Amino acid sequence: MSYPRVALIGLGLIASSMFWAMRRAGMQSHVTGYARSAETRDTARRIGLCDTVCDSVEEAVKDADLVVLAVPVGAMGAIAKTIAPFLKPGCTVTDVGSVKASVIEAVAPHLPEGVDFVPAHPMAGTEHSGPESGFSSLFDNRWCLIVPHGAREEATATLESFWQALGANTERMEVSHHDLVCAVVSHVPHLIAYTMVGVADDLRRVSDQEVIKFSAAGFRDFTRIAASDPTMWRDVFLTNKDAALEVLGRFTEELFALQRAIRTGDGDTLFDYFTHTRSIRRGILEAGQDTDAPDFGRIKKDD
Amino acid sequence: MSYPRVALIGLGLIASSMFWAMRRAGMQSHVTGYARSAETRDTARRIGLCDTVCDSVEEAVKDADLVVLAVPVGAMGAIAKTIAPFLKPGCTVTDVGSVKASVIEAVAPHLPEGVDFVPAHPMAGTEHSGPESGFSSLFDNRWCLIVPHGAREEATATLESFWQALGANTERMEVSHHDLVCAVVSHVPHLIAYTMVGVADDLRRVSDQEVIKFSAAGFRDFTRIAASDPTMWRDVFLTNKDAALEVLGRFTEELFALQRAIRTGDGDTLFDYFTHTRSIRRGILEAGQDTDAPDFGRIKKDD
Repeated sequence: MSYPRVALIGLGLIASSMFWAMRRAGMQSHVTGYARSAETRDTARRIGLCDTVCDSVEEAVKDADLVVLAVPVGAMGAIAKTIAPFLKPGCTVTDVGSVKASVIEAVAPHLPEGVDFVPAHPMAGTEHSGPESGFSSLFDNRWCLIVPHGAREEATATLESFWQALGANTERMEVSHHDLVCAVVSHVPHLIAYTMVGVADDLRRVSDQEVIKFSAAGFRDFTRIAASDPTMWRDVFLTNKDAALEVLGRFTEELFALQRAIRTGDGDTLFDYFTHTRSIRRGILEAGQDTDAPDFGRIKKDD
Repeated sequence: MSYPRVALIGLGLIASSMFWAMRRAGMQSHVTGYARSAETRDTARRIGLCDTVCDSVEEAVKDADLVVLAVPVGAMGAIAKTIAPFLKPGCTVTDVGSVKASVIEAVAPHLPEGVDFVPAHPMAGTEHSGPESGFSSLFDNRWCLIVPHGAREEATATLESFWQALGANTERMEVSHHDLVCAVVSHVPHLIAYTMVGVADDLRRVSDQEVIKFSAAGFRDFTRIAASDPTMWRDVFLTNKDAALEVLGRFTEELFALQRAIRTGDGDTLFDYFTHTRSIRRGILEAGQDTDAPDFGRIKKDD
């Protein structure tokens, strides 16, 4: 096996899913885990997450061949600084953050010579968080973007194989392109979902009870992604500011154009816009990135 | 049975699901159907949708005890005018439109004395449309809003029982409140989803291929609702203009506040906002309006 010893730093949805996926893949690696909160460490021990749950991050990374930073983006720099003196020479450090430029900036300067840093971003998740939210199939057929950052080719290729063994497809991407792509497909959609949920809650003329009761009409899909971990998402927006603001600027522009079409009764503009977006949905289905079942398979055709 | 003869005008997702749900409920009603397009009528005949598919709307409504207008909101007025002379005295006319004020304005003036008009809005749907998209469980545990409009109490109560037999919960609502609630939980979320999908397609620096490949990161949920029927949605925005613009105005205001927090690095504002929206999600789960399965049950916990 490529990594005899693996350290998972941060034991949330992603790290816990990685552990179960490693087990499912039959990897024999010894896995240590660390989380800042004693409660999380206790939970991890109780559910058998990791071979050893350590009470200090230094202990967790000692002798590890692969160190995975699975903490919110804003916490990566401090962790890197803390663990740097304890890293085994020749080991690989990776992360699972949703933003890459700022993680590289925060982490890379702390790492000693002879340690390979291979930033990675598994694009998978659910609206749940914490050590008990993980499951082994989270990464199946999802993408893990690899952003090589001066690491040796061998270290990069080994990490790619590791992620593929966990079920993911991998693709290498340049750092600033990564951050823009993610702003489009992930960060801004999340911000918009959060905003829509906030608006519904704020409109006093419509009661919370009504919003909840009638949510299946479209609103519901927004609430799922707006239920994701607040710390993680705060850090994403603070650290991918430029790309997020660029995409938000475009979004506002388009929204205003549609709003004007509504105000002026310009049905053709609305119809053309709505027709065009349908074709994008078709592309996603063809790429196998979603189910065609009505309502995501929530309800079943039974006749 | 309350309605010995039912006429379904328009044979899309909603009408076809009503037919299958009536059959599932064991209703003995004779059901006639009409669609403007000959192709849709042929499809309906081929799949056994309705007892009789008529080639004219006049024929379809003749002798019907319940006439269901299941066409786009913008087409309701013309249909009402056409069928008015052929309606059986004492029959009930209803619709399934997502907007109520403008449907009432368009339909009510055409209907003769002695015919009860009971506008209704089954809040259920999928991203699919057409006669083959219907299925009997579409309305199960969903809400059908009833907006009585001067109809006799008996006619309103009978329609409520009918929808309950199809699986829906019913609630009566005042017309302008209906249109505002729907702008919040349905219309504006759809517009925003359409916009986000349009933006992604428009950002030339990120290829369509990338958007599609990496869509599982959040974007995907927007594409589903942005794949809904363009004609239906165009009519919704043209006819629920005031409420849609009001909610959009609030949305833009909130979005700008979050955008400013990103620009100024105000993490506390972002964190508080994201934390608050989580609780709304919890309310929806408690109300049984969505599944708690990760990713809507698309992926399975298997460990």
